[in-house]
Amino acid sequence: MVENGVDALVASSPSNVLYTSDLCPYGRTFVLLPLDRDIEPAVVTPISCPIPVTTMSPPWIGDVRYYGEFYTETDWAEEPLEEDERTLVQAQESWRETKEADPLVLLAEILEQRGLIKGKIGVDDALNEPNQLQDQLGKRLPSVEVVVASHLFMKIRIVKTEEEITRIGEAVRITEKAWGTSLESVRKGMTERDFAYVFNKTILDEGGMPVSHMGMYGAPIAFGRRSAFVDLALPTDYRLKRGDLLRFDGGCSYKGYKADMARTAILGEPNEKLTKFYDAIFEGEELALELAKPGEVASEIFARVVERVIEAGIPHYKRHHVGHGWGLGGYNPPLIGPRDDTVLEEGMLLCLETPYYEVGFGGLMVEDVIVVEEKGPRFLTRFNRKLLSLS
Amino acid sequence: MVENGVDALVASSPSNVLYTSDLCPYGRTFVLLPLDRDIEPAVVTPISCPIPVTTMSPPWIGDVRYYGEFYTETDWAEEPLEEDERTLVQAQESWRETKEADPLVLLAEILEQRGLIKGKIGVDDALNEPNQLQDQLGKRLPSVEVVVASHLFMKIRIVKTEEEITRIGEAVRITEKAWGTSLESVRKGMTERDFAYVFNKTILDEGGMPVSHMGMYGAPIAFGRRSAFVDLALPTDYRLKRGDLLRFDGGCSYKGYKADMARTAILGEPNEKLTKFYDAIFEGEELALELAKPGEVASEIFARVVERVIEAGIPHYKRHHVGHGWGLGGYNPPLIGPRDDTVLEEGMLLCLETPYYEVGFGGLMVEDVIVVEEKGPRFLTRFNRKLLSLS
Repeated sequence: MVENGVDALVASSPSNVLYTSDLCPYGRTFVLLPLDRDIEPAVVTPISCPIPVTTMSPPWIGDVRYYGEFYTETDWAEEPLEEDERTLVQAQESWRETKEADPLVLLAEILEQRGLIKGKIGVDDALNEPNQLQDQLGKRLPSVEVVVASHLFMKIRIVKTEEEITRIGEAVRITEKAWGTSLESVRKGMTERDFAYVFNKTILDEGGMPVSHMGMYGAPIAFGRRSAFVDLALPTDYRLKRGDLLRFDGGCSYKGYKADMARTAILGEPNEKLTKFYDAIFEGEELALELAKPGEVASEIFARVVERVIEAGIPHYKRHHVGHGWGLGGYNPPLIGPRDDTVLEEGMLLCLETPYYEVGFGGLMVEDVIVVEEKGPRFLTRFNRKLLSLS
Repeated sequence: MVENGVDALVASSPSNVLYTSDLCPYGRTFVLLPLDRDIEPAVVTPISCPIPVTTMSPPWIGDVRYYGEFYTETDWAEEPLEEDERTLVQAQESWRETKEADPLVLLAEILEQRGLIKGKIGVDDALNEPNQLQDQLGKRLPSVEVVVASHLFMKIRIVKTEEEITRIGEAVRITEKAWGTSLESVRKGMTERDFAYVFNKTILDEGGMPVSHMGMYGAPIAFGRRSAFVDLALPTDYRLKRGDLLRFDGGCSYKGYKADMARTAILGEPNEKLTKFYDAIFEGEELALELAKPGEVASEIFARVVERVIEAGIPHYKRHHVGHGWGLGGYNPPLIGPRDDTVLEEGMLLCLETPYYEVGFGGLMVEDVIVVEEKGPRFLTRFNRKLLSLS
């Protein structure tokens, strides 16, 4: 923040709100974070989703202002209240004083009260999670200089905290358990849907949440030649045949964080082409894991890894990246691709992968989740990385 | 579209893309829909998520243009290809001709080819699902008049198709099965988490997807006084006691559509206050169901329903709405609230509800999903609407 000359940051994208407050927002929410530690931070969030409901841990920010409209009766309790209930009463009481409909009015008010209306405010008006905060705040408070500081949030988030590593590690553990349990259930004639059911059910059993996209049944599972369809294919009634590949990519959610890993198996024995090609992507990923150290440059790792896969057995191998940062919201910088010159740092969390997709043949993948450390990668993934032959 | 004078619509919000193309978008996607039926529609979507992977039904739009970067080998197949595989090959081949990175370049190109660059184009630059399409497209093609037409999409979507009613109906069926199965598993000492597990597992068993928000374990379940926390509370280790309420609100996903219904139960017998208050909200909801007919005005229904709850037993009842439209993306217009003068139409899908929340006491709710019809509401919900006493 000092480097960028901002006096305060305002988080408003769901990921940045969750990251800075551990608050899971259901409507437009702002988290104000002043540079000066003597100035109190603040949250603006809808009264329909008050703090005791939507935080995973006790809120560290005391000044919470509510907007919108939602009625909870607070005057009739006959017994002493629990702490969460008292927080809810406070929320209702403070909201009733203003019944303000517009969160921007509350944010502007706080900035005035904090003496921040002549300063420079960084907002996360990002392309991926767009909002019109820069425009809207600029119009409301002409004396404030509002700048887009999405890169600054990403910079803060690029090295993971131990809590983040723990949550992603747990998502990985649950995902590996689901893959293992699903593989044990494999039988000829099983459909992709059957397999996805075992996968998702195991995730629930272990305390995770299955991942879906727009409410689709989205376990990232494909059999046979269908494994050439990328990792977003919905599971179908396709039945597993002897000689078919089984591929999964992705994973479950755990406390807001997801896993992103991949493994490939086959029902029966691999033929010569499959063995050769899997070995090639495996060797490529091995090199990526070896190179993932502080001081290495993303684009250089990319070039060497693609070269390794080509030499090791897939002469026509083409790829746009061989890994990416990972965290809240999914993909995080850096991208281990040809145009990203990020120098790796201790504590970055990376998913490394060398996928190969061929129509009429299938998709091969091994993807691991690691933390970059001086002494070599700290693996969050533990499941056997080889091509598994099921009988 | 004729009324609004637009020559074409461009859908870009995930809901509008899914609605107009049955395509489940994973990256920025545009669906161009010309007013003139002789002009061909088109889709612009990432090559990383090509059409055969991300549609639930065979695509009705033939002209699909891909941007981004993603490699799938297409030259090595030894056996005849399936239809999906051929579509994938075509996608890769057409993408390789341009390898365009920017979807806006492709959209502008299509508008030029279709002779639409001097027309008026409506985009869904909505507040709920914001994008900068209006600005971006306006800058790129100064001769086009780009207007925000989110309301037009909503107007098109406000009366549901039979396919939408079928999907929401199935989400409701699965949700009711989950609620029923969970109630059968109830025992004293059971935690909210245990109950939520049975609820979510039954949803998977029945072919639906549990709902989560930002990857949290979000089954909408609360026990006892915790039921006063609104329907977004995460399930906890709170243990069910005799005399506790059990409340759920929401439901599962099915093929992109969700359920939104609520029921309340109690372990044991209700006391006088609970009986009186539940009867009051029940009578209010009954009146809402009775009034939900073509020609009725949303704000008038709201006023009469709130009045009914007050008369029927909760003199201090306050509420900001007693129902809402429902469809893709969740809440749809109209809102059955004090400031919405929408006249109800045949085929609208509504969730009607009269929730009551009181700190130190609990939350009471009955919410039903219906289609507005001349002869009275067509119920998608079928589960017993009374306050259920469990022994």
